[in-house]
Amino acid sequence: MSVKIPRVIVVGAGFGGLETVRALRHAAADVTVVDRQNHHCFQPLLYQVATAALSPAEIAWPIRHILRAQKNATVLMEEVLGVDPARKVLITNFGEMPFDYLVLATGAMHSYFGHDDWAPFAPGLKRIDDATRIRRQILIAFEKAEIAQDPEVQRRLLTFVIVGGGATGVEMAGAIAEIARQTLAMDFRRIDPRNARIVLVEAGSRLLPAFPPEQSDYVRVTLSKAGVTVMTDTMVTTCDAGGVELGPQRLQAATVIWAAGVMASPAAKWLGAEADRAGRTRVNADLSVPGHPDIFVIGDAAAVTNNNTGRPVPGIAPAAKQMGQYVGAVIAARIAGRDTGKPFRYRHLGDLATIGRRAAVVQLGRFRLRGYFGWWFWGIAHVYFLIGTRNRFIVAFSWLWSYLTFQRGARLITRAPDEPT
Amino acid sequence: MSVKIPRVIVVGAGFGGLETVRALRHAAADVTVVDRQNHHCFQPLLYQVATAALSPAEIAWPIRHILRAQKNATVLMEEVLGVDPARKVLITNFGEMPFDYLVLATGAMHSYFGHDDWAPFAPGLKRIDDATRIRRQILIAFEKAEIAQDPEVQRRLLTFVIVGGGATGVEMAGAIAEIARQTLAMDFRRIDPRNARIVLVEAGSRLLPAFPPEQSDYVRVTLSKAGVTVMTDTMVTTCDAGGVELGPQRLQAATVIWAAGVMASPAAKWLGAEADRAGRTRVNADLSVPGHPDIFVIGDAAAVTNNNTGRPVPGIAPAAKQMGQYVGAVIAARIAGRDTGKPFRYRHLGDLATIGRRAAVVQLGRFRLRGYFGWWFWGIAHVYFLIGTRNRFIVAFSWLWSYLTFQRGARLITRAPDEPT
Repeated sequence: MSVKIPRVIVVGAGFGGLETVRALRHAAADVTVVDRQNHHCFQPLLYQVATAALSPAEIAWPIRHILRAQKNATVLMEEVLGVDPARKVLITNFGEMPFDYLVLATGAMHSYFGHDDWAPFAPGLKRIDDATRIRRQILIAFEKAEIAQDPEVQRRLLTFVIVGGGATGVEMAGAIAEIARQTLAMDFRRIDPRNARIVLVEAGSRLLPAFPPEQSDYVRVTLSKAGVTVMTDTMVTTCDAGGVELGPQRLQAATVIWAAGVMASPAAKWLGAEADRAGRTRVNADLSVPGHPDIFVIGDAAAVTNNNTGRPVPGIAPAAKQMGQYVGAVIAARIAGRDTGKPFRYRHLGDLATIGRRAAVVQLGRFRLRGYFGWWFWGIAHVYFLIGTRNRFIVAFSWLWSYLTFQRGARLITRAPDEPT
Repeated sequence: MSVKIPRVIVVGAGFGGLETVRALRHAAADVTVVDRQNHHCFQPLLYQVATAALSPAEIAWPIRHILRAQKNATVLMEEVLGVDPARKVLITNFGEMPFDYLVLATGAMHSYFGHDDWAPFAPGLKRIDDATRIRRQILIAFEKAEIAQDPEVQRRLLTFVIVGGGATGVEMAGAIAEIARQTLAMDFRRIDPRNARIVLVEAGSRLLPAFPPEQSDYVRVTLSKAGVTVMTDTMVTTCDAGGVELGPQRLQAATVIWAAGVMASPAAKWLGAEADRAGRTRVNADLSVPGHPDIFVIGDAAAVTNNNTGRPVPGIAPAAKQMGQYVGAVIAARIAGRDTGKPFRYRHLGDLATIGRRAAVVQLGRFRLRGYFGWWFWGIAHVYFLIGTRNRFIVAFSWLWSYLTFQRGARLITRAPDEPT
């Protein structure tokens, strides 16, 4: 009787997927990573690509290069179309792949709360291509304002609305304010970019609800000083080519950026499994799917409860990494004929968000920082977690350069400027 | 009587256009730069973006930032549709712009010698978007080869044909060989990228005809050692989705890159002026258009003869810069009521081309270099001519890093992989 090496397929090479693969590096397994992109993207810095501070390649790295030394791992760039849990087969655009264990780490996309028709007018920020699209839209708005003769058209072009006051929304608003007030200040002749109007809209009562209230206050004050109009307790009721409606109020804006909500990727649908309202697959205590002990869902695609707080585990990189490490270890143990037995336990490390030059908020348990030191902490932590020495170096250099010169190194409009304003 | 400030319009912010604007910096003129892109692209390094060595933003810089300190210059991102030379009006997608002097520095596009139907199968390299498209195509070929089961399909995916043995063709072939032999060597499991076939096809009898024959021989030998099949005296007779035909011989190839010929932009057509076979406008000794003393055509868009050799001025950056400086000075003099009188004289500085690691050829008059020292010379010259201290630093760092690690920092496939192979 020949010994068959178990086949493990990991779908998605984000934070969760990569950690799963790494945790299997000593396992007697044949690990295949399937992703429709060729690169792992460091999502926490995606907003810096969208705001022309960094180039895409500085926060993205080829998956197969990251895993080149792990000889039991194969990387395939394919698009997953579905799963047949009964036959234990993954279906991709290149055919069927049988598995013994399957890990779905497929992440989340932005959600418009049932208003999918808003998507063309209010792009969200999840992938490299989203970031270059938003960068193009922001830069083109200033270019078109310089050409426009009509002051009303100019005002609309120079109005930027960011929907959602979580970390991404706050970071985008702060960065766009910096572009308008500092980076572009001297580059135009007919318009003054400093007159740009940047509006941050949040449905809840305060920004950054994951942080303590006094940090939310600090963020609000800092953003206001930087020229951002912060509107809390405000719902977007319509979103169209002209701008947004906030209840009775209409805001004419050429650029609307969606940072308000996410919807899990269709892992639950592929499996026919139960999902929560945000589309996240409900999983067992070991992150396996009910009825399918060999299929796991992790990261933003999974609905997991924090045992300490009883609240959902947040959709952030450290949570996905912890799930990946856990599931990789569970599968490795089962392949070795052992059983870890222990359920997944999430350990919340903290929250970070930056607002702009010398301003950030940090909360790690009881340890809190803000302002200048918070900003340094934020920067060092993000450089540390980047993949590759080269990227760490170039990002650190780009930030230092921007800090000293007020410039941004990637003000590129790629593709033809033929989109409607 | 009020004094009217003369309006100078410069179309195109390449090497020629930018130099024209700079030469007008002390002129009592209202200078407007019109370009459909927001950035100046350093074309000599475009092949490094196409081969994943550099990021687009490292060789491109916003035009309005370059000219921010020149207060008499306004930059507008518009697409030119035509010129009405009689009314002295430029027509763009945003309307009409009257001018007193017009400089067309609109460059060239690749030309398929009457076979425009080859364009989709053999992209050329002129703009940033061309470079990211070719980068995607090269990287996807390796990704698909890893997935393919059929050895014949794999062979086609791993065959790269470069058409044209000038500087761009030689540099592309050398860089693709490096990607296959070094960068990707360890990253795949099912294919060996070192088996990739790279074919450089040239219709003439030797590579780099602008260089002395012994340097052409050196380049041929060096490329062959690096794994490139060099075919001189070979014409491409057909180009389709499957590959190329070279007379009787068919070469199945998923990637064909066109570096064989250029066609001037439609400046001559806009003006109804006489053009040569490559579409270049025939101009007077002062680079003005016959019959229109206030309209000038420069750079790759103009047919100019080198007075020393009687041969055409080559389509390279230093030639475009010299024409820009000349025309800017002519216009400045005429605005000041003087006349320079002197015709344009081209001064050929030299030619440079690189083949890969530690291999390049340099010819500056009687001064010649090749190999290791030529390679250093090439690198330093290109970093020196880049715009912006930041870009110089990052490009130098990226090259040093690649040199030490054999890696390339921008192996990104952006946009969905839905193109046909």
